[in-house]
Amino acid sequence: MEKTMEKIVALAKARGFVYPGSEIYGGLANTWDYGNLGVELKNNVKKAWWQKFVMESPYNVGVDCAILMNPQTWVASGHLGGFSDPLMDCKECHERFRADKLIEDWCADNNYELEGSVDGWTQEQMKNFIEEKQIACPSCGKHNFTDIRQFNLMFKTFQGVTEDAKNTVYLRPETAQGIFVNFKNVQRTSRKKVPFGIGQIGKSFRNEITPGNFTFRTREFEQMELEFFCKPGTDLEWFNYWRSYCINWLKSLGMKDDEMRARDHSPEELCFYSKGTTDIEFLFPFGWGELWGIADRTDYDLTQHQNVSGEDMSYFDDESKEKYIPYVIEPSLGADRVTLAFLCSAYDEEEIGEGDVRTVLHFHPALAPVKIGILPLSKKLNEGAEKIYAELSKKYNCEFDDRGNIGKRYRRQDEIGTPFCITYDFDSETDGAVTVRDRDTMQQERIKIEDLKAYFEDKFTF
Amino acid sequence: MEKTMEKIVALAKARGFVYPGSEIYGGLANTWDYGNLGVELKNNVKKAWWQKFVMESPYNVGVDCAILMNPQTWVASGHLGGFSDPLMDCKECHERFRADKLIEDWCADNNYELEGSVDGWTQEQMKNFIEEKQIACPSCGKHNFTDIRQFNLMFKTFQGVTEDAKNTVYLRPETAQGIFVNFKNVQRTSRKKVPFGIGQIGKSFRNEITPGNFTFRTREFEQMELEFFCKPGTDLEWFNYWRSYCINWLKSLGMKDDEMRARDHSPEELCFYSKGTTDIEFLFPFGWGELWGIADRTDYDLTQHQNVSGEDMSYFDDESKEKYIPYVIEPSLGADRVTLAFLCSAYDEEEIGEGDVRTVLHFHPALAPVKIGILPLSKKLNEGAEKIYAELSKKYNCEFDDRGNIGKRYRRQDEIGTPFCITYDFDSETDGAVTVRDRDTMQQERIKIEDLKAYFEDKFTF
Repeated sequence: MEKTMEKIVALAKARGFVYPGSEIYGGLANTWDYGNLGVELKNNVKKAWWQKFVMESPYNVGVDCAILMNPQTWVASGHLGGFSDPLMDCKECHERFRADKLIEDWCADNNYELEGSVDGWTQEQMKNFIEEKQIACPSCGKHNFTDIRQFNLMFKTFQGVTEDAKNTVYLRPETAQGIFVNFKNVQRTSRKKVPFGIGQIGKSFRNEITPGNFTFRTREFEQMELEFFCKPGTDLEWFNYWRSYCINWLKSLGMKDDEMRARDHSPEELCFYSKGTTDIEFLFPFGWGELWGIADRTDYDLTQHQNVSGEDMSYFDDESKEKYIPYVIEPSLGADRVTLAFLCSAYDEEEIGEGDVRTVLHFHPALAPVKIGILPLSKKLNEGAEKIYAELSKKYNCEFDDRGNIGKRYRRQDEIGTPFCITYDFDSETDGAVTVRDRDTMQQERIKIEDLKAYFEDKFTF
Repeated sequence: MEKTMEKIVALAKARGFVYPGSEIYGGLANTWDYGNLGVELKNNVKKAWWQKFVMESPYNVGVDCAILMNPQTWVASGHLGGFSDPLMDCKECHERFRADKLIEDWCADNNYELEGSVDGWTQEQMKNFIEEKQIACPSCGKHNFTDIRQFNLMFKTFQGVTEDAKNTVYLRPETAQGIFVNFKNVQRTSRKKVPFGIGQIGKSFRNEITPGNFTFRTREFEQMELEFFCKPGTDLEWFNYWRSYCINWLKSLGMKDDEMRARDHSPEELCFYSKGTTDIEFLFPFGWGELWGIADRTDYDLTQHQNVSGEDMSYFDDESKEKYIPYVIEPSLGADRVTLAFLCSAYDEEEIGEGDVRTVLHFHPALAPVKIGILPLSKKLNEGAEKIYAELSKKYNCEFDDRGNIGKRYRRQDEIGTPFCITYDFDSETDGAVTVRDRDTMQQERIKIEDLKAYFEDKFTF
């Protein structure tokens, strides 16, 4: 079978994973809403990240910082000065384009091998290349572009009653800076010693010109970021530690080796302050896409904030009696992207004898939005089945379904990735047992109702 | 002891519940960041809400919608037209005020009894009252105000590259509208029949002129909203159902009768479309404050969206064979407010013999940010204690503390509301048991290490 985005988007919409945002009003430029199953899936992904990166890690604690921050934050982080896209308009048809994208697309179409990446080019270099190669407007085919100008990607708004520069604030373009500005606060209140890390999950906003690929690139998105502070000199060791830790997290949740890769940046690709960066990528139906950026950011961020705020950002190491600004390892993961990756990874169409095909989502049980489907064989049996629902739904997200024949109900649960179905039948009334069906093997076993709690005890851990 | 906001804010900052936002840059107008303990507390509150209002309820499912929505949403909801504060400036000192607040404050100061609430007044009425009573500028004492004008409370931003009306979007001022615009989507994908509800947790933004009282009223805040759809005529019954359900939720998490009250709106106070509204209020150190608004909103919201979008918002009831627009019961809870309420409720200073006083947070165990403190009596015993940490932190947020004498460590855990402390001592090495201390009773008992999992099994449910 061919796994396509069309099929996955259709399933997502049909079964309540993801709907187009503001759909009744014709949508709003690539915004998406998570539906009744999508919210559970994404929450499970976030819970799994928090569990391994904050709760179980003896090194790390969490924070939850405001989206609106003092604008000096973005002076220090470099986002006010440098976080921009090079844009130009076609003077003929008035469409607007990213110059770097235009060049990359032209190179791909013409099998033209660039030396290095366009990312590092000046506006002048881009303009010259476009003129030299006579790159045409993709919309109208003419060759009449304006000059390139930089467009800042931060969403701007106004706090207070007047819309002037004094009241301008930005929606954060990343969660990381909330962690950096609180480095001293968290170190003080958690009493952690370096090395330690601070994790955060939250929304960020980037006014991208070309969002796309379903929920892969959106203007409003959620991040799961860890900033890990360590002693200079130990940073590469910790970089490798977290690099493996991230890969293991994906694998432990069922991602397969052949659908992921770790791409280490070449020295030319690295930011000037970074000693090492790895992108963990996933093979989406539309190609390889970045999920996780893991970077050794040295002392760049804390030093920037120290310089702009005037606050001392150094740490006194009472073992070595040294004072230093810690180095930072940053594994930064997109929550929407990795949720989409798990959805794509789970998707399958299986032949199950005699030409019959079932669509099934092979989610890891920890991620499955519905853990247990509870299916009374007949509506006459609802009372007994409802008792089981009331009991199990205290611990697990369960779905009660008493509509349609049992085979159809199994298919429906397969299609949303429910790992277990409990069927309450006429025998259950007398033998106090139910049938438990496994999504993947489709095997069934008879379990006493009183043993269900113990049966499911370790089924959803990872 | 006197429970004051000063004490609670100081504890929150000292122990990592809440820090001022962007603090190293002098803050940003009443923004706050949740620290290493605050994030856990607030997450536990959200988890407890989701558990009872979505997971365990056979009626309800959840969604997670985008913050940025098509602006037509706010036309339909009335926020573009009517969601505003009446503002006026003092022409002498150029301070800006909310006219309604000015009147309310003057009335309170002068023991003047108003008939009804200022909320319903026209600008003319407010202006006349201010002139008649010669209300002075609270800042400079003069009597020279501008006219009143309406100031919309939605944060405005621009999506895309040009800052014009066509690209104007708003940060949602409430999560509810994401639910209403998806009513048909969720009904279809969840296959729920009326009555059913849709819950959502997420950030909202209101450009309030007078935020204040710590995290009680902030411009950026998080909501936990349920929109419950029912058949017209059954709405008052469901209104009472959810009204009790909400009160029970607060009580089951430890809120006491004498610190909460349910205030039913009088007929004059009700919005024109509402058949009933109750505010559940909590007695903060600064006075009674609203936590939860529970309203019977009739078919107002769905009808508005039907009118503006042209999409059919009705539901076909296949039992009664009727087609109708469902009525909506909306229990809307502020996540930051109720988190602050639980913090205030938990705060205590207890005399514990011989004039010794301990500060203790009596959180319900389900809400406590740290569930179990793990304290090796000596650093020589860290290995054994770390094994217990590794095991228990798979299920519970634990804190490992090996610094200071054991009495001080207990106090530290009391002060952050940790319900249980495990002390691993020299005997533990030979008898395979530890001491478990209860936060509230301060009683200790000896438990076998192998029995710890079972011991804690039901300690954190509610």
